[in-house]
Formats: sequence, structure tokens, C-alpha cells
Amino acid sequence: MNHKGLLVVISGFSGTGKGTLVKEIMKKYNNYSLSISMTTRQPRPGEVDGREYFFTTDEEFEKLIKEDGLIEHAGYCGHYYGTPRKFVEAELEKGKDVILEIEMQGALQVKKKFPETLLLFVTPPSVEELEKRLRGRGTETEEVIHQRMMRAKEEQEYIDKYDMLVINDDLDKCVTEMHDIINASRFTPDRNKKLISDIRAQLSELK
Amino acid sequence: MNHKGLLVVISGFSGTGKGTLVKEIMKKYNNYSLSISMTTRQPRPGEVDGREYFFTTDEEFEKLIKEDGLIEHAGYCGHYYGTPRKFVEAELEKGKDVILEIEMQGALQVKKKFPETLLLFVTPPSVEELEKRLRGRGTETEEVIHQRMMRAKEEQEYIDKYDMLVINDDLDKCVTEMHDIINASRFTPDRNKKLISDIRAQLSELK
Repeated sequence: MNHKGLLVVISGFSGTGKGTLVKEIMKKYNNYSLSISMTTRQPRPGEVDGREYFFTTDEEFEKLIKEDGLIEHAGYCGHYYGTPRKFVEAELEKGKDVILEIEMQGALQVKKKFPETLLLFVTPPSVEELEKRLRGRGTETEEVIHQRMMRAKEEQEYIDKYDMLVINDDLDKCVTEMHDIINASRFTPDRNKKLISDIRAQLSELK
Repeated sequence: MNHKGLLVVISGFSGTGKGTLVKEIMKKYNNYSLSISMTTRQPRPGEVDGREYFFTTDEEFEKLIKEDGLIEHAGYCGHYYGTPRKFVEAELEKGKDVILEIEMQGALQVKKKFPETLLLFVTPPSVEELEKRLRGRGTETEEVIHQRMMRAKEEQEYIDKYDMLVINDDLDKCVTEMHDIINASRFTPDRNKKLISDIRAQLSELK
């Protein structure tokens, strides 16, 4: 009903498979535009600057914070992560639905600044499955796996702050569900304020 | 994700076309079960007892209120309207999504008693179109049309209390949107409390 695009934040415990889901939803549908986060952490093997992340320095990152050039940012495991503002606003203006794959602290910042944002939480079917996926990734040390599981233990607190929740059990099914949830979210009263106020104005003229 | 069905309340100003939408959604999909309201008003030409409404007396209706046999009830234009409890609960237990086409006072009563209920508001594209449809119906006097428009003027206040809002501009499109919205609504955290508490319990055991 709105002409502008919808801002969609996708979060979930590390190891839930968010990255793959986002890649698939981008491939399958053409209404989405993916925001690339900026980070000060080192690239993992295979990661490319400007594809997975924009990799930058602490100095550059802190400069962007000061200039209000990020719509959210957070520290995680000793590194900065953030979302450059310019790209997001330009794509929304074009009517694209912009996907942000960010963690929970950042998600809540975005929701506060842009209340129309859809916060979507992806969960594994069980905690056992989460740990299995983290190990299966094969890129993390035992210590990092433990750190991520402890992080999940902290993060669970925020699940209720999300608007919607999907289980990533079957990839295809989950991608379709995410797309359907995003489309249905356009129909909340909060995202149709113009329509509601028009109808109210017309009704108020009746005698 | 839940095994039990979803309770769906559909409301909208008189003349919005809710009745037709409900008929169509019941015809097109087989997951729905329609709750028949009870009323003390006289049948309109063509209405059949047990199809559009259960028609009853003031005495019988008041007896049901006392016995807590209605999940909501309200007065409208000098008559009682209400939803018998038994049928709704039995159908939800079977896993059916139960549709209630009721007005706003009743809708808010249901949401209070059953917070998982989805409140869906149907609006015409404009107030002009609403008045046109009321006249087009051909069964109402000018006085009744005026009464219904004034009622809409009061009711607009409650639109924001609804979870979702659809425009009935194109019948087929609106029916599909309603179905998609209902399906997507299964994914709110509020409707997945069991899943969330299971994950929390599993995470709380980690050390």
C-alpha cells in the first residue's frame, strides 16, 4: 500500500544460517536490495570486500559514527559492525525492500529510529542443531564456538522484541515463509498511516 | 507452527463488503471454519436462520450471556449480536482457523479474552465508495444509511487497535491478501510461546 520500500532486519543466533537464507531470498525474488554492513574485523577465508562486508579501520568507522553516517552500529567480539545510511535510504526511496542482516543490538537501534522496520528473527529448530551447525561450518575454533553459544544465551532475551519469528529447518520453505511474512507486514495499521488519516479526514466531514 | 487453529476476527464499516469477502475466502481455501453469530434482530429478505445468523429472542440471548455461553456480545442499532462459544472452541481444537465477522466492540472483547486472536480490518478505498456501496445494496432506507455512516464516523477510532488492515478494492485480490496475512500471522512471537520457551530452556542449561 505504501510506495516506499520496507526496511527488513534479519537477525538470529550465529550459526542459524541467516547468510544462506538472505542469499537465497535475493536470488529468488527481485523486490529486495541487500545492505552491506561495514566491519572492522578481519575477512574470513573467501570473503570479499564490498560483498560480505565493507572492511575498514577503527579510525574510519569512528569517523562515520560521528558524521551520523550509520543507521546502527555495535561492538561484537571486539570489533565494530555497522550499516551505512546512504545506501539504505536511496534504495527505500526507489521502492526496494532493503534487507539488513544484523545482530540484535543493532536491530533494536534501527527499530527505534525507523519504527516501520520489520524485525525478523530466524531460529534453528533446537539449540542442539545450532551447535551442530556452528561446528559444521569448520572455520571456528572450539573457543569461538563456545563464545557464540554463550552469546546466544544472552541474545535469547530479545526474541520477543522481534515482530516475526521463523524456524530455519528447511531452506526453501524458510525462504518462502520469510518472503510471505515480509509481504503481509505491509498491511499493519502502523505502515498505513496515510490511508487511515485520509479515511478519518473524510469521515470527520460527515454530518 | 502451532497445532491449534487461529482465531480471526474480520471487521469493517457496514457496507465494506465483509460478507462477500468471507464467503469467498471460505470457498477458495479449506482451512477455515465460519462462526455464525447470534442476533435478536429480524432477518433481512433472503436471510436464513443458521446460515447468516442464528436468530433468537432477547430472553434467550440474555440467558446465554449469564451462562458465559458467548465469547463476545454487543448491542447495535437496538439489537443484540453475539458469538456462541462452543462452536469456536471445538473448531480451534480441530486445528481449523475460525473466522468471526463481527463489529468492533465485539472484536476488542475477543482480543482481550484471547490475545492470540488476529484482528483484521477491512476498509473501502474511500468514504465516498463506502456510501456508494451502502446505497447500491438497495435494502436500506436513507435514515439507516445515514445511521451507518455516522456509526463509521465513530468506529474509525478503533482502526489502530486492529493487527492488520486490507483495502477491499478488488474482491479476488483482497481475498488472497487476507489469506496471506492470516498465514503470516502465525509467525509472531506471541503465537510461538512454546517454541521460544523451549529454546530458552535449552540455552539456560549451557555453561
